[in-house]
Amino acid sequence: MNLFQSLPEGTVTSPAGFTAVAVAAGIKQENQLDLALVVSETDCSCAALFTQNQVVAAPVIVDRETLAANNSRLRAVVINAKNANACTGEPGLANARATQQAAAAALDCAADQILVLSTGVIGVPLPMDRLAAGIAVGAKGLSVGNGRLAAEAIMTTDTRPKHLAVRLDLPGGPVTIGGMAKGAGMIHPNMATMLAVLTTDAAVAPDVLDELLRTAVNQSFNRISIDGDTSTNDTILLLANGVSGTAVADPDSITHFSAGLNHLCTALAHMIVRDGEGATKFVEIQVTGAKSEADAHQVANTMAISPLVKTAFAGSDANWGRLLMAAGRAGVVFDQAKINLWIGVQQPDELQLVASGTPTAYQEKEAATVFAQPEFVIRLDLGSGGGGTAVVWTTDLSHEYVTINADYRT
Amino acid sequence: MNLFQSLPEGTVTSPAGFTAVAVAAGIKQENQLDLALVVSETDCSCAALFTQNQVVAAPVIVDRETLAANNSRLRAVVINAKNANACTGEPGLANARATQQAAAAALDCAADQILVLSTGVIGVPLPMDRLAAGIAVGAKGLSVGNGRLAAEAIMTTDTRPKHLAVRLDLPGGPVTIGGMAKGAGMIHPNMATMLAVLTTDAAVAPDVLDELLRTAVNQSFNRISIDGDTSTNDTILLLANGVSGTAVADPDSITHFSAGLNHLCTALAHMIVRDGEGATKFVEIQVTGAKSEADAHQVANTMAISPLVKTAFAGSDANWGRLLMAAGRAGVVFDQAKINLWIGVQQPDELQLVASGTPTAYQEKEAATVFAQPEFVIRLDLGSGGGGTAVVWTTDLSHEYVTINADYRT
Repeated sequence: MNLFQSLPEGTVTSPAGFTAVAVAAGIKQENQLDLALVVSETDCSCAALFTQNQVVAAPVIVDRETLAANNSRLRAVVINAKNANACTGEPGLANARATQQAAAAALDCAADQILVLSTGVIGVPLPMDRLAAGIAVGAKGLSVGNGRLAAEAIMTTDTRPKHLAVRLDLPGGPVTIGGMAKGAGMIHPNMATMLAVLTTDAAVAPDVLDELLRTAVNQSFNRISIDGDTSTNDTILLLANGVSGTAVADPDSITHFSAGLNHLCTALAHMIVRDGEGATKFVEIQVTGAKSEADAHQVANTMAISPLVKTAFAGSDANWGRLLMAAGRAGVVFDQAKINLWIGVQQPDELQLVASGTPTAYQEKEAATVFAQPEFVIRLDLGSGGGGTAVVWTTDLSHEYVTINADYRT
Repeated sequence: MNLFQSLPEGTVTSPAGFTAVAVAAGIKQENQLDLALVVSETDCSCAALFTQNQVVAAPVIVDRETLAANNSRLRAVVINAKNANACTGEPGLANARATQQAAAAALDCAADQILVLSTGVIGVPLPMDRLAAGIAVGAKGLSVGNGRLAAEAIMTTDTRPKHLAVRLDLPGGPVTIGGMAKGAGMIHPNMATMLAVLTTDAAVAPDVLDELLRTAVNQSFNRISIDGDTSTNDTILLLANGVSGTAVADPDSITHFSAGLNHLCTALAHMIVRDGEGATKFVEIQVTGAKSEADAHQVANTMAISPLVKTAFAGSDANWGRLLMAAGRAGVVFDQAKINLWIGVQQPDELQLVASGTPTAYQEKEAATVFAQPEFVIRLDLGSGGGGTAVVWTTDLSHEYVTINADYRT
């Protein structure tokens, strides 16, 4: 059964009724794309998830307010890169609202139909004149052919644009879900630090859309980790304009749509990990045999963010003691005499390194071969007698990560 | 009032009645010191603190058992470097006990009068023949002059030995406290990952010793962070042999002794941070205005372990947005509109960067000058209306850290 068709070239403009534009507004260096607009020809229902950080950027505050008042007739999203409009106080809030107003004027709609996203450096005022001028110019260049350029415009330390679409044949007819994401550092669960804009031409009520988005994000963006740092700006939006004429309301359609959305989000999340700052490895960490899923997730996550684990990945060093050390500091109680550890390239269980807490007689060379691959899988079974399992995806901590982040602003 | 005299050349053998030896037992490369014995001529009371990690090394298990049965007539500590005897299963436990027996035989005492410490690679069996031979040879070379060599023998990725002593004039007479520590990676609160052996010629009952050690460690070793990773082997021991004839039992003596011990532990903890793997900066992070000390500590700690904060330190980039981002993800609720942030070299409040959540009109050049110093102080006030404060000491995350940890075993 072909549940959905994946469209690698697909973007936020693949669903019917969406257009986009990318502009070099002068926020980044001259002639670099730094502003994107995604616009629906009709009103959209919208679901959103935001950063859990206590320090949140002005656009997060403004979008939360906007969606609290209106989650059923959104029209457009404005995204700028290079400047996060975070830690900018009251002037920052005024700038986020002015961005809404500029877009509303250019697109001939109301300010509360506009959502604003920002990413980049913290603590610097947005250059409002350039931003407003960019929006005015951009509104005249909207096109269905600009989806990929929009994904490029929202990049910061990303090295490549991240976008995808999936097409589904629902009982009521075909629908498309498209998406783009950015983020290569400050990536961590509880809204992996990133921006993502998802669009669909299905007709979905806001409450259904919210449930679908939460489910998808919990299995995708909340399972990736590059450096354990969450950002002030994390936002993921899902806009549904209903232009396809197909509704997602009955259980069958919801299940089917959910599968497609989960695939889209997981694929975008993996793109973020693969493009992680300085990343040379893509590592899947599975934890099984935990007392609960929460325990398993906590252990997997602590392994994924441990600098000693991540530098071992970078060095292709199968230093599994660090994996156990990190698991042991996760704050989850387990019996070290019951743990089992495997690694593999195609499957997680190709080579067992630890059995009942004691090293097996594995060959170091074999283990090193696995860790030398660009992608591999680790499975730690805690032997706690529970069915709790979790999977996270992460990267190594390389010299390049340090170079990127030691010199980001200079 | 001169509460105590600091002796920079002091070691574990500065207190009367303690001797030590350092041996090249062949656990490290040939001719490198890798084994130390610290021996008291009389029975000692002993207090100890161990790692909070769920995965603990064999010597931690054995020492906990030993001290549970006997905390008042200890005689010696055996410390080996290069091999942690962790994740080694039942054979590892047998090896730790065999190490006790070898030392007991060589020193003519009982096995339960010996404590064993190991540090180094995880998951590799101890080379017991070499270790036992080293102990036998070492027992014949014990001397009060070997304190510094003992501190050298326990080093792993440390670049220099860490030792100090303090002399106190108690009401009952003079006493000395000496100490050595090792640790340069896997350093984090809740027993900063390290080994430390402290000695004193004061006479102190085990329960008093325990209280004194907990107080001192909470203000020192538990306040440092290099990479957020705790180890399987963290151990700190305090042995009191009473050879000075001066007791620490009355409130005045306890207060006085406590001040000296706190100083010693804080100084050793700072030595560990300064010698952190790849460290080029020594940064003090103060958090004030929190609802509780625990909240303040949690926020300070999250800032201290954030890779994005630490790479900013490495790059001498006063990217304070990352400091707020890290504070915001600490799991502590605060109002970002009330936070204030200062940095300074001599004092924490030289340059205010954020006032009531909004950037001040500071000069970037001034901020960069502070971050370019080898030592500086950061103070974040959360404005939560509470008196909770905490201080942690940390380092930067440099290229050298990655080099050291990507290639540790190869």
